[in-house]
Amino acid sequence: MPAAPKTDRKAKVPSVPTYFKKQNVAGEFIHIDAIDWQVMPEPFCINGIRYKLLHVSPELGAWTAIYDCPAGSWFNAHVHLGPGEYLLTKGRMDVRGGSLEGGSTAYALGYGYEPANARHDKTYFPIASEFYMTFVGPLHFLDDNDKTIAVVGWKELQDMWLQQTGG
Amino acid sequence: MPAAPKTDRKAKVPSVPTYFKKQNVAGEFIHIDAIDWQVMPEPFCINGIRYKLLHVSPELGAWTAIYDCPAGSWFNAHVHLGPGEYLLTKGRMDVRGGSLEGGSTAYALGYGYEPANARHDKTYFPIASEFYMTFVGPLHFLDDNDKTIAVVGWKELQDMWLQQTGG
Amino acid sequence: MPAAPKTDRKAKVPSVPTYFKKQNVAGEFIHIDAIDWQVMPEPFCINGIRYKLLHVSPELGAWTAIYDCPAGSWFNAHVHLGPGEYLLTKGRMDVRGGSLEGGSTAYALGYGYEPANARHDKTYFPIASEFYMTFVGPLHFLDDNDKTIAVVGWKELQDMWLQQTGG
Amino acid sequence: MPAAPKTDRKAKVPSVPTYFKKQNVAGEFIHIDAIDWQVMPEPFCINGIRYKLLHVSPELGAWTAIYDCPAGSWFNAHVHLGPGEYLLTKGRMDVRGGSLEGGSTAYALGYGYEPANARHDKTYFPIASEFYMTFVGPLHFLDDNDKTIAVVGWKELQDMWLQQTGG
Repeated sequence: MPAAPKTDRKAKVPSVPTYFKKQNVAGEFIHIDAIDWQVMPEPFCINGIRYKLLHVSPELGAWTAIYDCPAGSWFNAHVHLGPGEYLLTKGRMDVRGGSLEGGSTAYALGYGYEPANARHDKTYFPIASEFYMTFVGPLHFLDDNDKTIAVVGWKELQDMWLQQTGG
Repeated sequence: MPAAPKTDRKAKVPSVPTYFKKQNVAGEFIHIDAIDWQVMPEPFCINGIRYKLLHVSPELGAWTAIYDCPAGSWFNAHVHLGPGEYLLTKGRMDVRGGSLEGGSTAYALGYGYEPANARHDKTYFPIASEFYMTFVGPLHFLDDNDKTIAVVGWKELQDMWLQQTGG
Repeated sequence: MPAAPKTDRKAKVPSVPTYFKKQNVAGEFIHIDAIDWQVMPEPFCINGIRYKLLHVSPELGAWTAIYDCPAGSWFNAHVHLGPGEYLLTKGRMDVRGGSLEGGSTAYALGYGYEPANARHDKTYFPIASEFYMTFVGPLHFLDDNDKTIAVVGWKELQDMWLQQTGG
Repeated sequence: MPAAPKTDRKAKVPSVPTYFKKQNVAGEFIHIDAIDWQVMPEPFCINGIRYKLLHVSPELGAWTAIYDCPAGSWFNAHVHLGPGEYLLTKGRMDVRGGSLEGGSTAYALGYGYEPANARHDKTYFPIASEFYMTFVGPLHFLDDNDKTIAVVGWKELQDMWLQQTGG
């Protein structure tokens, strides 16, 4: 049995619920054309996918973005740790090899729901495409041996976005 | 003190967690042009707003729809009981009177976040507009005296949609 | 066709995503014995149910409380607009008439899940009981004619709690 | 530029929203004493923590459990990928070293909120303790070099529970 760490048996107990008087969350509006595209780096995707981060919800760990996907680009293997919903506004998206290989193929204008635990080994864009997506929870990116590359959620995305935009 | 109802003091206790072996939720894809628009009836809105119901999430009480809003149409007063996010793909939306009257005005292509408890006394479309929106929880529609007209969530919307489409 | 309100065709568009640099939500801890019970007023319940509000989550519209229910007390008819989960730590709870009348009866130590749209016409405590519950979304209280009495969510509960505790 | 995979330019488009007519989620009740404790294995925790899985919510990726923690037991380093809330019903829990080392110490009867992205390098129980907790999203367990040991969510927990109980 491992040794126990020392602890304080007289530790103070917080006795006042200081966290009350919470406010409603603020509304937001953003004119999408007023924001510049940023590059979504490898190893998350290949061949120049760009994105605009539109929103983060720290409490639930949700986030929203729009993606610009050149012909021949793709996202690498990842698992959705919570549900996601997309509106494919332009082009075409092959999920899990596309419908030719047992996966599915989405055409614009299309709506899709990706459930928690959905695994996308490769999400491929055969033609120039664009989609808007709301996510709950992080994406878990995996290498060819199913080892974790990164767990990427609202905080990591906001940090990347701020670094790229100098925000 | 009101009279107590009779109760069964020997009621059986469920002792087996029969609800396990739950499955992952299924993915969905829908080609939006393949669905017909349906009319969103009064008193929820005025002047011919139409919609396509794209998704419902019974567990969290979430739902997703796309709305076609003719010039001069509007949604009546309602409160969002959970957060909602929209992509305004066409036109213009005046929230709470628009920016001329202290509210805000959204132009396409625009993203908006409406928090839980957001109250929209009138959401007006001065020109032909279209928006896609994901909702968590119901909308609470109110009359001019702040009396409840209806609390409309995923289930009520699905029922309305099925009735309209004969589904 | 109703008259359209006047709108501003030159309204300014917000062009800067000022809402970024969001922080992680803060953790909380509360020593429950250090807080006094407050009375949950009629018409929500009858015969002296008391509560301690433990947490509110404004973004999702979630909240958490613990309830002290004397023998013979009950909650009036309400619909859960989102899912709720409870730990019955003491006593017994008859839901929808209890198991004698086709509903269910919960005994301590018990766990229960009430889904979105669950309607509880009367939740009755035949013996002194206590339960802890996490809620997503508001409760919709109804009168005998199914008219809305109130839609009560995290904000209304926080306001009531602050008024009662002088917070 | 990597070679593009072959795709099917005539792939069929799903045109019927077959996923409608969804039902309300079912309610659940479980008599906790009727379920046996199961061992929570290393490397998630040390010195004999046991658990009862009470609920899983596949749609949001939420889950609920109660934990029995002997004196001297602890959970290894992990990050909460979504928010969690607990009711400490017995004993004491030192989070991040406890209050003696800059963390916090929770005493029964206590309520705690752990936000999305909360990192707990060691959660230690100096005396026999018990807590009930609701989780949204998985836990991300890390080794001493911050490498991923496992991402454990509702599905992995349900699979482990079913294997342990022969369910």
